Amino acid sequence: MTQTIIDVKSKIRAVKDFPKAGIIFRDITTALKDYETLQVMIDYLCEQFKDTKIDYIAGIESRGFIFGMPMAYKLKAGFVPIRKPNKLPAETYSQEYQLEYGTDKIEVHKDAFVQGANVLIVDDLLATGGTAEAACKLVKKAGANLVGIAFLIELEALKGRQKLDAPKIVSMLKY
Amino acid sequence: MTQTIIDVKSKIRAVKDFPKAGIIFRDITTALKDYETLQVMIDYLCEQFKDTKIDYIAGIESRGFIFGMPMAYKLKAGFVPIRKPNKLPAETYSQEYQLEYGTDKIEVHKDAFVQGANVLIVDDLLATGGTAEAACKLVKKAGANLVGIAFLIELEALKGRQKLDAPKIVSMLKY
Repeated sequence: MTQTIIDVKSKIRAVKDFPKAGIIFRDITTALKDYETLQVMIDYLCEQFKDTKIDYIAGIESRGFIFGMPMAYKLKAGFVPIRKPNKLPAETYSQEYQLEYGTDKIEVHKDAFVQGANVLIVDDLLATGGTAEAACKLVKKAGANLVGIAFLIELEALKGRQKLDAPKIVSMLKY
Repeated sequence: MTQTIIDVKSKIRAVKDFPKAGIIFRDITTALKDYETLQVMIDYLCEQFKDTKIDYIAGIESRGFIFGMPMAYKLKAGFVPIRKPNKLPAETYSQEYQLEYGTDKIEVHKDAFVQGANVLIVDDLLATGGTAEAACKLVKKAGANLVGIAFLIELEALKGRQKLDAPKIVSMLKY
């Protein structure tokens, strides 16, 4: 583990029992408000894909927007939001995923991507992997070429990585 | 109106009757997916504040994250999310605002800002100004110095600007 990663980890606040009892919530706001840490996180995630041509970053609502947009800006890619139902105004593809109780879904505009273009999915956290798995399916359904997924944080014990069918899966901070 | 602004306006899609009949929705996704337009939008908004020291960008959930984070990255500022209720894990200040029917509120972490630090609020759209007005109050309540507000789009007929008590209010595209 490099010094950079230790430094960033030290800026992530652990909040006990949020959003419910027994959960340790990894609070990224304490890292984002520190401007140097913000630079380091974005630069690190971009660096992992420096040898890949990326046409679009697809960010998963809403914390995926936080990391995805500056990466799109830095990598000179387009940005495509993957959103919760009924937020996108034009025609969409949608993809269901399992929650602890019941299901939810996410959507992307049907005309979001040039067909066959290279897409990197970005989100803040890989936990059980349900949302990220749905995002992978959605990008493929929309006719794009999924080149990878980037997360700031991965909760390794939950094995979300095993659900993801992507050529490259990157996370900066592992817990 | 400069050529730049005309070019960006041409990338904003007008969707009729979304989210309800009679509304023309200004869809920013068609601008964001074009990587050149994305660069131009972020650079334009940053340029308007080039003579102001900005310690933090405060982005309003969730489309304020889309514009606020790359601005924070470019301006080397910290980023603070202003969120809907019960999303932030630590202690928060909250501020109510009026909706067409009823009220809603937004929240910020109590420890988000170094006291007296310079804050720029960012959102995608200035309409009636209710949310932005609440965000201004919230930033001040949290002990910071509000230096301005930046929007991609301003719907001038709704006169939201009149509600905002900020030293500088900027919007790139006016309708």
